[in-house]
Amino acid sequence: MKLSQGVEWGMHCATLLAQVPDGGLMRREALAVHYGLPEAYLSKHLQAMTRAGVLQATSGPKGGYRLARPADEITVLDVVRAIEGTAEPFICQEIRQRGKGASSPDECRLPCQVNSVMRSAYQAWEASLRSVTIGELVTRMPKSVLKRNQRLLSA
Amino acid sequence: MKLSQGVEWGMHCATLLAQVPDGGLMRREALAVHYGLPEAYLSKHLQAMTRAGVLQATSGPKGGYRLARPADEITVLDVVRAIEGTAEPFICQEIRQRGKGASSPDECRLPCQVNSVMRSAYQAWEASLRSVTIGELVTRMPKSVLKRNQRLLSA
Repeated sequence: MKLSQGVEWGMHCATLLAQVPDGGLMRREALAVHYGLPEAYLSKHLQAMTRAGVLQATSGPKGGYRLARPADEITVLDVVRAIEGTAEPFICQEIRQRGKGASSPDECRLPCQVNSVMRSAYQAWEASLRSVTIGELVTRMPKSVLKRNQRLLSA
Repeated sequence: MKLSQGVEWGMHCATLLAQVPDGGLMRREALAVHYGLPEAYLSKHLQAMTRAGVLQATSGPKGGYRLARPADEITVLDVVRAIEGTAEPFICQEIRQRGKGASSPDECRLPCQVNSVMRSAYQAWEASLRSVTIGELVTRMPKSVLKRNQRLLSA
């Protein structure tokens, strides 16, 4: 089980956009430079976050990205799902209905317990990520970092 | 984020081995036939479960697999880790220390909050899988399935 590096990139970009004064735009290049990321590859993730309604993109020479809604209304789960998609990691293939020991359709009216236990764990993971917002992540950052970002973002 | 189909296979095999009378062995072929699985590929997962100490393997013409300890002492997490490994899905690459906005080492004495929130979610997922044992999964199966398995496994 693995998450793409885009999750880290997307999360940091969201926390940075949350710090832009007056909800202003930030250019893709500036986001890439801030974290030393390859711009073309970052672009893919920013587009995914835009499609998922986490970011708002404005095109043109003065275009860029901003958060699509207040940082306190964007959860970490929103960002993770934007990058990783919403598919559950465990796909039940109903092997209980196969082979010599196959259960009958009648015995399978309730979900397979293997599937249920995997789903519960995924829901616990999602609930944990849903309990923290991008706004909260910003407040947890060192004050000196927030101060430097204010200077960089106003330049 | 994706889990291999081996998780479903491994979990079902573990619940089946838990039903073998008197902790007897079950041959790899019989496990494959019970669930209609390709034996060669299943073999890979059974070996992983053996290496992880979930199963015990006995070689030779009368060889086979059994649970390495009582089913009530094997958690779902034990099986998932045996198949998927123990690496965390989120690998923090410390991009906060890179680029124009790089944090100083002094500002990074505490773990990155992005990393912390991802780790908490993973721990919630693990805790959920740790809270259910293979023995419990067996007790949740339909009685008619347990009865049929008793018949098949005693044959």
